[in-house]
Parts: sequence; structure tokens; C-alpha cells
Amino acid sequence: MHGMTGQDVAAPDVIVFDVNETLSDMAPMGRAFVAEGLPEHVARTWFSEALRDGFAVTAAGGAAPFAEIARDGLVRLGEQARLEAPETAAERLMGTFKDLDVHPDVVAGVRALAPSAELVTLSNGTARVAERLLERAGLRESFSRLLSVEDAPAWKPARSAYEHAVARCGADPGRMMLVAVHPWDVHGAHRAGLRTAWIDREGSRYPGHFAAPDLRAPDLPSLAEQLAHLSG
Amino acid sequence: MHGMTGQDVAAPDVIVFDVNETLSDMAPMGRAFVAEGLPEHVARTWFSEALRDGFAVTAAGGAAPFAEIARDGLVRLGEQARLEAPETAAERLMGTFKDLDVHPDVVAGVRALAPSAELVTLSNGTARVAERLLERAGLRESFSRLLSVEDAPAWKPARSAYEHAVARCGADPGRMMLVAVHPWDVHGAHRAGLRTAWIDREGSRYPGHFAAPDLRAPDLPSLAEQLAHLSG
Repeated sequence: MHGMTGQDVAAPDVIVFDVNETLSDMAPMGRAFVAEGLPEHVARTWFSEALRDGFAVTAAGGAAPFAEIARDGLVRLGEQARLEAPETAAERLMGTFKDLDVHPDVVAGVRALAPSAELVTLSNGTARVAERLLERAGLRESFSRLLSVEDAPAWKPARSAYEHAVARCGADPGRMMLVAVHPWDVHGAHRAGLRTAWIDREGSRYPGHFAAPDLRAPDLPSLAEQLAHLSG
Repeated sequence: MHGMTGQDVAAPDVIVFDVNETLSDMAPMGRAFVAEGLPEHVARTWFSEALRDGFAVTAAGGAAPFAEIARDGLVRLGEQARLEAPETAAERLMGTFKDLDVHPDVVAGVRALAPSAELVTLSNGTARVAERLLERAGLRESFSRLLSVEDAPAWKPARSAYEHAVARCGADPGRMMLVAVHPWDVHGAHRAGLRTAWIDREGSRYPGHFAAPDLRAPDLPSLAEQLAHLSG
């Protein structure tokens, strides 16, 4: 079962990677929360609520920097937990977030995908975070462009975020494929006319309220294998 | 310190209440999660992620029923926790959610606010959930209209959700005041031209990335007191 939903998916000319959680491994965040005296599960709450608030700003027609929303959420979580110095804890946690490494499957996956398509990133965060992440993994030169919605100007999953990537790449959206672990990102890219691949490292179920992905794979090397069997 | 941000806030003709968490007390959800074998804190994660997903659908230009997103999230959380019957647990938890009661301050607050303004609700959920909640509290007759974004058709905090309430009430948005515990709702209402009041029952800090409320109060009776001191 390769999860393909149709015969009309061709090998893409451009692969657009989401960055946070799709390329970066967030597991160290849980340990960093514990080191600050917070329960490990708060890491998930924090990231979910940062996205919730960023999407709210987007739905209301505006934009705000991801790092600002994320840091503000850390301070408020620290205050709720009655930490002595929530601002300092938030700074340390943001430091951990900006220094995450890629998932174990990413190096092999990117090397397998790079020969047959142009690779770019499109993040709701800054291009600088993506750049440092890929540099640390030795993968920077595999990517032609590191794009941020800060230039879009709306966050994913707003249509204009994907249109920004389409314009920058100068490609047909139907020949571009978004790769993400987040169903909301797959949904937005699908609505903007891109092909989509959902990376599901944890073996979960895809939510019914989001547009289904064209492809699904448990990791990037498996996605590369699937793409190798598609016609160009 | 009453949190008023200007002298230009007049007593509103129409007060628009958010429903989930603003009127309803979500505390029983934590206990209901525990009864299903899930940690209490998962209740917060569930609600935050339901809003995150609903806002994502909104930001991408669509709409989905709140109950569908909420139930789907419960099933996936139950699967992640390896519950034996996640679908059945999700149904029971949705039952608890639909049978919540109002916060202890709501009855006195609504009775204090009702004589001087038209009261309506505007929910991202169905009008039926608001109706049952207010009927159980003996407050249904204090509200002239129970509005849902299902007729808007976009979710709050999209501008069109508030415009739907403005159109239904036939009022000047500047003479309407949204009352909510959620900063994202205050933000959206402010951008749509309404006055806003933030109810902060937990004594938290208002996030910097959302438009500030015109008024802030620890509960509804305190808000009624503040409004009684404003000129009409």
C-alpha cells in the first residue's frame, strides 16, 4: 500500500519541503522543557498553540513572525507553571528550537531525491532557521532556495504562501510537490494546485477534514522510492 | 486597574458572547479524559489542536464543522494513547462537551448585563450547543439571537464571521462588543470594527501578537460593573 490516490501523479520538477517537524526532529524540545522544570508533554501544547495563534492571525487577514508567537507562548506557559524566570526559560527553549537537528531519515532521503528534482524549503519560520538546520546536516547545497512566508506575506496554509513559492520557482504548480508531516500544510498546498506528499513517521490516521495527500510515506527515503516509480 | 485602553469606549448596544470556554466551563473535560484512561492535560491539547485545525481550514479559504474536527481529534488522540475503542471514547467525550455547564460567574453576569444591551452569542460551533447550554443555566431568554459561523460561512477570527453577526443584528459594529476569553477572538473582532472585552478568569497575560482588548475583566459581573460606568 503506497497510498497513491490516482494515476495522474507525475514525478515533480520541484519538491517543496516544510521545515519544522518535517525536516527538524522536535524530540529534544520535550527534554528541554523537562530541564526547565516543565512536563515533557507541554512541548506539544506549546507548538500546537503557536500554530493555532499564527493561523488565527492569518485567518483574520494579518501576519506575525513565528518566533515572536512561539516565544510569547513559552513565556506564558512558564508563567502558568509558576517558573521563577519565565523570560529566561523561554530564551533557552527558543535556543534549543533554533538548534534542532534533522530527523535520522532526512540525509538519505534528501540525497535520494536531489538528483531528479529541484529542492526548496517553504517555512512559516525564517529562512535562517532552515539554513542553519540544513548546514548542520551537510545538506544546504542540495537546496536551490530557502523560502519563508515572511516574504509571502501570509502563513501557510493560506493560498498566497504557496503562490509565493510557485512564483519564486517559476514552475507550474502542478509540477511542484509539497512534502510535509502536517495535514494542514498538505491541505493548503492541494488547494493552491500543488501535488502533495504526507510524511507520517508515527503511523497515524490522516484527518478527514483536510484534503487528502497524493502520496503518503513513512519517511523521506520511502517517498524517494515511490517517486522513482512515477513517470516524469 | 480596569484595563481600559481609551476614553472612546461607549456602553454597547449589542454584546456578542463567544460560547466555548467563555460561557461554558471546560473543567469537566479534564475529568472526562481521565475517566477514559487519558491524562487530564490532554483536554487542553485536544481543544487547542481542534482550533488549530479549524483555523487552518479557515486560513486556506474553506470551512468545516467544529464538531467534526473536534471528534476526529479525539479519535486520533485515543489511537495515539492506544485506547481499545477510540471511536467509542470519542463519542462519550463529545457527549460531555455538549453537556457542559456555564462558569459560576455567568448567571449573575448575564443578568447584570441584560437590562442595558441586546445579548447574542456567536460561536464557531453550532447554535444548538449554545442553546442547550443557556437553557440548562436558565439564561436562554436573556439572549435575542444564537448565531453560528456555520451560516457565516467562515470561522472566527475571519472578518466575515463578525460581519455575519453585524448583519444579523443590524447594528453599527462600533456599538457592538465581543466578549471572549480567547485573545484570537478579541483580535478578529477588533479588526472587524467591533469593541472588545477580554475575560481573563485565570489572571494571565494578553499575548502581544493579537490586537489588545478595549476592556478586560476577571469575570462577567466585573465587566457589567465597568460597562455601567461608561456613557451610552
